[in-house]
Parts: sequence; C-alpha cells; structure tokens
Amino acid sequence: MKKINIGLIGFGNVGSGVVKILRDKKSFLAKRTGLQIQVKKVCDKDLSGKRNVSLNKGMLTKNAREIIDDPGIDILVELIGGLHPAKEFIIEALKKGKNVVTANKALLAQEGKELFAQASDRGKSIYFEASVGAGIPIIKTLREGLVANRFNSIYGILNGTSNFVLSQMSKYNCTFKKALAEAKSSGFAEKDASLDINGIDSAHKLLLLIYLCFGKLISLDDVYVEGISRISLADVNYAKELGFEIKLLAIAKKEGQDLEVRVHPTLIPKSHLLSSVGGIFNAIYVSSDLAGDLLLYGPGAGQLSAASAVVSDIVDLTQDLQAGLFRPTLNIIPDKSIKRLRKMDDFSSRHYIRFMAVDKPGVLAKIAGVLAKFKISIASVSQKQRHKAHVVPIVMVSHEAREKDLRSALDTIARFDIIKEDPVAIRIEEA
Amino acid sequence: MKKINIGLIGFGNVGSGVVKILRDKKSFLAKRTGLQIQVKKVCDKDLSGKRNVSLNKGMLTKNAREIIDDPGIDILVELIGGLHPAKEFIIEALKKGKNVVTANKALLAQEGKELFAQASDRGKSIYFEASVGAGIPIIKTLREGLVANRFNSIYGILNGTSNFVLSQMSKYNCTFKKALAEAKSSGFAEKDASLDINGIDSAHKLLLLIYLCFGKLISLDDVYVEGISRISLADVNYAKELGFEIKLLAIAKKEGQDLEVRVHPTLIPKSHLLSSVGGIFNAIYVSSDLAGDLLLYGPGAGQLSAASAVVSDIVDLTQDLQAGLFRPTLNIIPDKSIKRLRKMDDFSSRHYIRFMAVDKPGVLAKIAGVLAKFKISIASVSQKQRHKAHVVPIVMVSHEAREKDLRSALDTIARFDIIKEDPVAIRIEEA
Repeated sequence: MKKINIGLIGFGNVGSGVVKILRDKKSFLAKRTGLQIQVKKVCDKDLSGKRNVSLNKGMLTKNAREIIDDPGIDILVELIGGLHPAKEFIIEALKKGKNVVTANKALLAQEGKELFAQASDRGKSIYFEASVGAGIPIIKTLREGLVANRFNSIYGILNGTSNFVLSQMSKYNCTFKKALAEAKSSGFAEKDASLDINGIDSAHKLLLLIYLCFGKLISLDDVYVEGISRISLADVNYAKELGFEIKLLAIAKKEGQDLEVRVHPTLIPKSHLLSSVGGIFNAIYVSSDLAGDLLLYGPGAGQLSAASAVVSDIVDLTQDLQAGLFRPTLNIIPDKSIKRLRKMDDFSSRHYIRFMAVDKPGVLAKIAGVLAKFKISIASVSQKQRHKAHVVPIVMVSHEAREKDLRSALDTIARFDIIKEDPVAIRIEEA
Repeated sequence: MKKINIGLIGFGNVGSGVVKILRDKKSFLAKRTGLQIQVKKVCDKDLSGKRNVSLNKGMLTKNAREIIDDPGIDILVELIGGLHPAKEFIIEALKKGKNVVTANKALLAQEGKELFAQASDRGKSIYFEASVGAGIPIIKTLREGLVANRFNSIYGILNGTSNFVLSQMSKYNCTFKKALAEAKSSGFAEKDASLDINGIDSAHKLLLLIYLCFGKLISLDDVYVEGISRISLADVNYAKELGFEIKLLAIAKKEGQDLEVRVHPTLIPKSHLLSSVGGIFNAIYVSSDLAGDLLLYGPGAGQLSAASAVVSDIVDLTQDLQAGLFRPTLNIIPDKSIKRLRKMDDFSSRHYIRFMAVDKPGVLAKIAGVLAKFKISIASVSQKQRHKAHVVPIVMVSHEAREKDLRSALDTIARFDIIKEDPVAIRIEEA
C-alpha cells in the first residue's frame, strides 16, 4: 500500500498537535485504517519556539515552496491562519495537484468561492473539519451523516472565548471586563481577542455552515454581526431572573423564501440545551427535514481537539486517494427555495429590553405609549431596584416585533429626558 | 456511472421511509453524490397494509430469496428486526457477495461476532447507523470523525420511549402508569413496550457503542440492566428537589483496567446537558482522548429520522462500491488497556436512597448506624412529609460507596420492623 505524504505549513499549536497525533498514534492509525500516513515536511516561518514534539532538522523548513513544489507530497495541511499567504499557498498547492486540509475559517469564509472553484476545477478537495467547532464532527455530519437532508435552520455557539466570558459572568457574577481578563489569563483568549468578542469569528464559521446547509457562499458584509462587549452583568442577571441565559448565537434560518443570517448576543430559555453550554464549549443546533433537530456539542478549542479533526480529514483524504475516489462527489447543492437574504429591518424576534429611566410617576406610561405606537406589545415588565440616585432599570420582554419597529421605538424613547442611558435590546430565541 | 441496486427486506415503517426518501430525493441525491441508487426489489411477508409510498407490483415480493439470490442487487437493506430470519438473510446475502445495511440492534448486539466475522471474511461490510439514535450520526462520528481517538467512556439516553415516560412524569407530575399509557396513545411506545422499559433495548445499543469505542463484543448476559418500571413519581419529585432529573442511562466507562458496563435509571444533576434531554430524544455523551467530551443529540425514533441514517449508509456503501474501496478498512481495534469487565459488586457510585420508615424517635439513628457500619457516608438527609399514617419517607444522598456495601446495608435495614417498604436506591452520575 502506497504511503501518503503530508506537508504541513504552520507548526504552531494545532500544527504540532497534528504531528504529535500522527506520530504517537502511527501504529493505531495504520491498524485502524490500513493506511500509511507520513509527515514528510513541516514549514513555519519561525522555527525557534519550543513545541511539544521535536522533529529532525531535515523535516523542517522555513520555505513553503519546499512543500508546495514537492511532487512527493500528496496533501497540504495549511494551519497558518489569516488570509495571506495562506490563500496563495492553497491555490499553488491545488495547481500542483495536491489536496488540501485547512482549519482556516476566516480564509474559507472570505475567499471560499475562489478556493472551492479552484479545487473543483482540478478535481481536488479542500477539507476543513477543524474550522468549525474544533473536534466536533459537524462538517462530516452535514456532508455525510445527513447527506439526504435539507435544512431549515442552523444555529449555535461557535466561539469558545466569548462563551467562556458569558459563562463566567453568569456563573460567578463578574463583569465583562473581569471575565475577559480571566479568559486571557487561563489561556482561553488571545491577547487580542477582538475577533472572538466582536462576533466576527462566529460569523466566519456560520458562513461555512451556511455553505454546507444551504449551498450558498454569502459575503460577511451581508451578515448582521454584533459582539458581546456591550453585555453588562446587570443584563446577565436580569435575564437569569426571567429564566434565560445570554449566549452569543450565530443563526441562519429559512423564513419563507428568505434566509435570515445574524450573529448577536441572544437570550435563550433555560429549558433549551444551548443555555447549558458553558465555558469554552461550542454547540451547533441543526434542524433538518428528515433527521429532525440535532445538536452536536464539544470543546470549541484546544490543541488536540482541533488536531483530531485535522487528522480525520487527512484519513478521509488518504482513503480517497488510495481508492482513486473523488469525494467532492459530496457536492454542495444550492437550496433553490431561498430567494434572498432577509434585510435586518425585517427580522422579527421577541426582545429583552432595558431602560434606565428617572424614577418618577408617568415614566412607564410614556415608554409604553411609544412602544404601543410602534405596535410592540409587551409580555412582561418589571421595575428593578434603584440603580443610582433617581434612576431605575425598567426591564421588559416584548412579544415578537419587527426589528425596524423596535429600533424606531427605542430611538424615540432614547431621546426623552427621562431616559438616562441608551436603551439595551437583546433578541430572544426560543427554539 | 454504474447504477447500484438495492434490495430491501422489511417494508414497514422505516422501510417505507427509505423507499420514500430514495424516490422523493432521487435527483437531489444524484446531484449531491453523483451516484445512481435504485431500489430494485422490496420484500415483506405481509404486503397488504397501506404504506405512504406505493410501488408497482413487479417490485414487491414475499420471497426474500428473490433479493438474496439476485446477482443484480448490490446492497441488502435489512429492516425486519428480530433475530430470525434476519440473521440468516444477512449471512446468505454476504455469501452471495452483497453488502448489508441494517438497523437491527438486537441482532447485531447478540449475533454481531458471527455476522461481522462473516462480512470481514468475504471483504464485505455491514453498516448500521440507524441502529443507535436513529438519525443521529453517532456511528459515523465514532468510526470516522473521531478516527484517531481512544475513548474513556460513552454513556447516554438511548431509548426514546423510556425517556418520554420519565420526561412526562417529571414535567407533568404523573405516575409511571399514566405516562406509559400516554406514550402508547401518542405512538411513542409499541403495544408491548417491555424491551424499551426494561432497559434491554438500551443495552443492545450500548453493546454496539462499546464495540465501536473499545473494540469488544460483550455478551448481554454480562451487562447489568435495570429498567424504569419501578421508578415512582415520588422519587422523580424528590430527585428534582435535590437538583436532579432521573434518566435511563446506558453507561460504559473505563475504570483503571476494568470496563464498567451498566444500564439503569440514574440521577443526573440539572447542570448536566443530559438532564435537559426530554421526550423521545436521545443523546450520547462520549469522552475521548483527543477531541474531549462530545455530545450528540437528536430524535431517537421516527420513520424519516431512522430512514435518513439508512440512506446515509447506502450512500457511503455505494460510494465505496463505485470506487472499489473497502472501507471496513475502518477497523475496530480492541483497547488492550481493558483487562476485564467490572463485577457489579465493585461498581462505585453516589446513590439516592429512600426509606419508608415508621415515624418514631430513633429510626434515623438505627438506619444511619447500619450505613456507617458498611462504610456508607451520607451527604444529605431529609425527612419528607408523612405519607401514610405513621410512615414517612426518608431521602438520603450518599457519598461514593461500593455497590456491594450498599446492597448489604440496604438488605440489613430492609429487615427492620420500622421499615415498611423495600428501600429504593438509584445511582447518581455527575459527569
């Protein structure tokens, strides 16, 4: 049986995990799959740092071309992240007849159209299981396990860092700032965690899930994205009193002929499984026409967890190569029932709303009057304990209302003298 | 591209779902997979009942040999259930060079050794995704998505009927009897639901998961199995007060060199995802060395859900056949660190315990004295409201204790005059 040779670009945390697994489990994988998988060359621009595996010098290079141009390497594993030069490396490798495994969600979300087309034109594959939910086999599930299914919606907790922060706030009653510092000191957040916290990382992953479920490669610019940095401890606690947890949710769902796509903090009822997903865990909820509503849950980050997914891609590709099977035979079929992306104005949700208002008679009537004018009906109201002198939080839960109406109402109310801070509105998802 | 021909034995609920999907989604599946999958013949011993798909008469037969002996049929789909003649049909089909897809957990759990050996000797495959968790792709996940992983434990809610019953009791405060009647009238339980309620169906599925995770085909006789028929509404409610839900759990976990295997009602803390799994849903929790702790959740029953899994197996097999790929290359590798099955006496758990005792001074001291003698230490005690005249429920939660000690203690206590009913003990699983 022919050996399959791997070239790895990006010998960082996940990259060294991949090398470690392929080495430590060499005989297990060989017995299990009947395949001989060999790491032939590893490239990183900085080879000085210490890794938890050591390679002999001949296997290491700083020059990616040594991998891309080597006809003896069958599969390129790209783990450097970022758009460039990752994109160029992948395209060059495809041109040289290699298949590709990557964990690069940002790249695939933003340049997927070109990359997938390049692969398809050349009869090659790009596998990317590790790009969403680390070791959770969500991509294999959507592509293969649910191969006969069409999808109604997919949504989930796709960013471990922001989920850790929100979980800490809820569990230990601590502020956003303190929770984020804790995430950083525990190694659950990068020094610059902005892409995690501002929702962009979740949006990248959601775009890949949408591609798999609905066959559409949407631009990030067309997605409503809101991060968690404005979530206050007060809102976390008020939500809890109402029976909800706040989670950063990435949502794609069919509404009639529209596809509604959004990433934002969301109130989820405690009876829903997603509300119990804590710490750095991710979970993806998918509603399908045959298999029904499924949830997959697991660590959303971690060296070996992500590397586990990369290795499963390598095994699948190696099997395909051995058999001469071209498996992107698992084509992505566009869902033709979807005619357009829904505009944000037309989103419709229940909302949690908090006003900080002066504590005097008539205030509630004034707020309620504006809401009524914009056809927003209220399911519950509660006036909380005084916050600062003469200012009280008023917490409401609305019935389903159009986004546009809600925003207009809140803008109007925000201009009143009796309102002392910008109103807070957080969407609620029930199911 | 060569057409792949399917022969289906068992044109019941799931069987007609499979035919329906392969027909309704013919062009979608062809576009998605590039494969032509054709149902050539369908067999059932009773063709009189109405199905939600109609087939022309030439495709129907009451004689299974018309499928088994047809060299034009590549894949046998066995959906009749039961041990015989399903076993004989599968073996005959393997002998005739066919691959097999089945949902028959009872058969594979009891006769798997022989069936898998027969398949392997002939270079053929038996695929069985629908046998555990209906449309949840747990088998593909264990075989492929987690291909590089070893497992520490796998446990889950594997029977939709018993989970429905327990959920009803907890949610609507109704008795076991009433909940079971409701399950039957809603179509969530067969007329004879004994295999569901007594834990045997869960045990069958657990044996298959153990085979996939640990590479061992264990006999049902070696598994401790306890059903839910003795769970009282009182215990459901007391458990709730303590922060737990009662679920029928199927558990396999490594403890040192032992594998501990058991199926029984279990108290699960409300913070655990499994406690939120309601109705007919199933969920499987798996702890792996690389990908970490994963959970897969979805409907545990349903015509299209199970048929979705059967179709994914058919697609995988068809791809393999087209490519000449022999994929049981995904070999099952025995976990050699496991030396033996743990004996029940050596199980160790925390327990929920309820005594029905005469309401007079000294009773608690007497019970506590015996527990202490057997080294069972108590984490909490509460005496509940009087039940009948002079009899009070005493509810305890123990710290971890050996099964043997606990049983000896309870046997001793049960013989006291002050104890009016057999003590109830239910194991607790925390993580």
